[in-house]
Amino acid sequence: MNAGVNVIRVTVWNENWHEQHEAEVSQRYPEGIHGAIAAALSTDPRFEVRTATLNEPSCGLSQEILHATDVLLWWGHRKHHEVPDDVAQWVHERVLAGMGFIALHSAHFSKPFKALMGTHCSLRWRNTGERERVWNIAPSHPIAAGVPEHFVLERSEMYGERFDIPEPDQTLFLSWFAGGEVFRSGCTWNRGHGRVFFFSPGDQAFPIYRDVNVLRVITNAAAWCAASVDIPFSCPAVEPLEPIDSPQGQG
Amino acid sequence: MNAGVNVIRVTVWNENWHEQHEAEVSQRYPEGIHGAIAAALSTDPRFEVRTATLNEPSCGLSQEILHATDVLLWWGHRKHHEVPDDVAQWVHERVLAGMGFIALHSAHFSKPFKALMGTHCSLRWRNTGERERVWNIAPSHPIAAGVPEHFVLERSEMYGERFDIPEPDQTLFLSWFAGGEVFRSGCTWNRGHGRVFFFSPGDQAFPIYRDVNVLRVITNAAAWCAASVDIPFSCPAVEPLEPIDSPQGQG
Amino acid sequence: MNAGVNVIRVTVWNENWHEQHEAEVSQRYPEGIHGAIAAALSTDPRFEVRTATLNEPSCGLSQEILHATDVLLWWGHRKHHEVPDDVAQWVHERVLAGMGFIALHSAHFSKPFKALMGTHCSLRWRNTGERERVWNIAPSHPIAAGVPEHFVLERSEMYGERFDIPEPDQTLFLSWFAGGEVFRSGCTWNRGHGRVFFFSPGDQAFPIYRDVNVLRVITNAAAWCAASVDIPFSCPAVEPLEPIDSPQGQG
Amino acid sequence: MNAGVNVIRVTVWNENWHEQHEAEVSQRYPEGIHGAIAAALSTDPRFEVRTATLNEPSCGLSQEILHATDVLLWWGHRKHHEVPDDVAQWVHERVLAGMGFIALHSAHFSKPFKALMGTHCSLRWRNTGERERVWNIAPSHPIAAGVPEHFVLERSEMYGERFDIPEPDQTLFLSWFAGGEVFRSGCTWNRGHGRVFFFSPGDQAFPIYRDVNVLRVITNAAAWCAASVDIPFSCPAVEPLEPIDSPQGQG
Repeated sequence: MNAGVNVIRVTVWNENWHEQHEAEVSQRYPEGIHGAIAAALSTDPRFEVRTATLNEPSCGLSQEILHATDVLLWWGHRKHHEVPDDVAQWVHERVLAGMGFIALHSAHFSKPFKALMGTHCSLRWRNTGERERVWNIAPSHPIAAGVPEHFVLERSEMYGERFDIPEPDQTLFLSWFAGGEVFRSGCTWNRGHGRVFFFSPGDQAFPIYRDVNVLRVITNAAAWCAASVDIPFSCPAVEPLEPIDSPQGQG
Repeated sequence: MNAGVNVIRVTVWNENWHEQHEAEVSQRYPEGIHGAIAAALSTDPRFEVRTATLNEPSCGLSQEILHATDVLLWWGHRKHHEVPDDVAQWVHERVLAGMGFIALHSAHFSKPFKALMGTHCSLRWRNTGERERVWNIAPSHPIAAGVPEHFVLERSEMYGERFDIPEPDQTLFLSWFAGGEVFRSGCTWNRGHGRVFFFSPGDQAFPIYRDVNVLRVITNAAAWCAASVDIPFSCPAVEPLEPIDSPQGQG
Repeated sequence: MNAGVNVIRVTVWNENWHEQHEAEVSQRYPEGIHGAIAAALSTDPRFEVRTATLNEPSCGLSQEILHATDVLLWWGHRKHHEVPDDVAQWVHERVLAGMGFIALHSAHFSKPFKALMGTHCSLRWRNTGERERVWNIAPSHPIAAGVPEHFVLERSEMYGERFDIPEPDQTLFLSWFAGGEVFRSGCTWNRGHGRVFFFSPGDQAFPIYRDVNVLRVITNAAAWCAASVDIPFSCPAVEPLEPIDSPQGQG
Repeated sequence: MNAGVNVIRVTVWNENWHEQHEAEVSQRYPEGIHGAIAAALSTDPRFEVRTATLNEPSCGLSQEILHATDVLLWWGHRKHHEVPDDVAQWVHERVLAGMGFIALHSAHFSKPFKALMGTHCSLRWRNTGERERVWNIAPSHPIAAGVPEHFVLERSEMYGERFDIPEPDQTLFLSWFAGGEVFRSGCTWNRGHGRVFFFSPGDQAFPIYRDVNVLRVITNAAAWCAASVDIPFSCPAVEPLEPIDSPQGQG
């Protein structure tokens, strides 16, 4: 929680594998995908931004850092399985206590997102770089502020239905793909005391995180998801609040 | 799945610990809680009922048995942690493929239910045997068929809010407790291709599973949750369905 | 309600204007759209089917007929405003008492559907007869039984987002259109004690109601929406169920 | 909408009948219920507050005033039917365009609330002034900020289930009553581009609108519901965004 302080503490996490192993990606994102997103968020005075990556100790996500994070953005693709179970569990529990969680693109298969959803989070996919048109179907939602009725990503990885997720609390964006598919590309859920947002545009193979509308959605989401509480787990045995008559027991 | 066959294959699972270790419980349920529930369901010709318990090999829940189960009822309390992770995962995955899952009472803390919900599933509780009044707030739902507007359990364990669950797809029952608490005591969710129902009345300390309304709810739920499909996990790479123009790539 | 009787009483309502005034439509549907749908439903022994049209007394929807209807299908387009307010209100109230209501295509703007939704139910549209691909995103739902992962309507009227509806209880179908739009083409809601289903494919300009998948969806929906209860309006003043201490009043 | 201006324009509407006709109520609320609520909101610098009542021209709710209102609070009880249909419709349409709407207590039966819900909004009730305990089941929601886990209203009118409303987008508060009932006492819905909140505590017979927790909920809700957009009705015919091949028509 961040009570009395005016800044939202954002951590942008990235597995940072493609950038280290694929020349094309490192040219596209010399600062890493995390760096590109962090740079965009840093232009907004509401945010205090840090980054964390897979190869840092505890993936850069110690419990101290998580506790000092109001919203965590997550990008992963090839190395989901290398995130230790305990780190994934810390993230999960921190969300349930109040931290926001934004799962970007292939993070649909990340350990924290799958644990929060309770489903496979599977989908249909194709990476031929086709046109995606993102439809804004909830323009009054804070995450859609300033986003047009629809916008185009000329080359995007196709993610298509059926997307195996729980019915969202609210579906904000629906995507159309040139190849014939549709996708619920922006969805919100509450889990525990935390807010979760999934946003699908964003493969490493295209400069999606340079797109002004994509960055606007991510920026809006970081503000909307930010923790307002920090409520630890409890399952208390409690005294009655009203007098209980002792019935002639059947027990 | 159960296509072409007219019977619903039910498995009633119970940790079966209280019945083996507490004289009062074994007198109340000489056949075990699983036995009491199975006996009630067996009077309904729609069902083919088996039981399974913790101390059987694989908890009585081999993958073969799970695959031949259309709906699984789960009662556990003291021994959640003794259910092996792989058994819990088989159950979880079988629900996502289509099997129904009914979590009874203290199964709110069972491994499969928590994995399906993605939250702590914590609550407030008190076991002094007070009056619970269950309100039927969705009388047109199949699970509420034949259930009165409200019914009383004279002695019941109190489960109270806040119950840490995802917002239910539908809340069917709300409970009032003499001691001053309220509880969402009957809730449904879809997860993957399976239907999930949680129903809170049912502690081992009181003869809840002899109550006609409780048994009616459980019977209705077993029919409603039963699998209609058996769809395995897949995350396919797919060919386009429509011709994709090759744009002048930005990628 | 239909307790103790095994048949589902279906009424198919149609404004029946295009068929009377446009040669092309009367050739396509000599029996009327209502007749085509009724004929398809009549092949299913679960249903007892009648039709009703705008020009009949009370639009063919007297309170007696409505009370003897378990599920009402509604097709309207040009003559929504000619449905008398009291007939629309009878339909609305009968749904709240338990009757199912299936709004087909341009019935998004019908009086009963708008009253049930509480929103404008507006959308984007284009009637150039383009390809629509309907995606089945909830294959375990009874309405999707036997429906493939996706199916194509070669020529269809485009209905596109933003569709101004309350967040559906469940979104079952999403449509892709060649011209670049997407649409939540199959949605369910509970209203009062009744189930509501909206299904968008179905303009009069194309033989949509001859398509095997469209007819399967409508048939499944008629069974799923059928009334299970008949609960009249009441707002009772009630006696306490528990003794109320008289507090030292502040009032 | 209120773009570029930092203040939330609140209108508190009250039928103002009890205060004019019942000595006890006029002593309790000499300024009227509207006045009491407006006074509480006016202490918060985020709000610019006006009031409106039934006996003013157009109920004090001209289209100009509604257009200059970001959130409308509504209290009515005895005189729902005296609100002209066109005023109710202006309110309804203004909500769909973005204005927030807060229905207080017996406003469950007001014309605008019923039109937004699409259901009867009926309930069980008893006005003997019993103890109500309000449970805060979504403490991370902005409307619950600063509200304790539960709070007591020593004398309150009982509103009990079944409350005939669409399943809420989120249920924030559940109430326990001494006489044995429960109630979903705080619920949110999106309708069109507007946010709707219902909050049940508040009969004229008790000084509910002096309670610090009740006023906190109402204050939080006024901020949360405030319009962020002003989007007029449209149902546009649109040109295709992608080239449409002319299929060999079946039409």
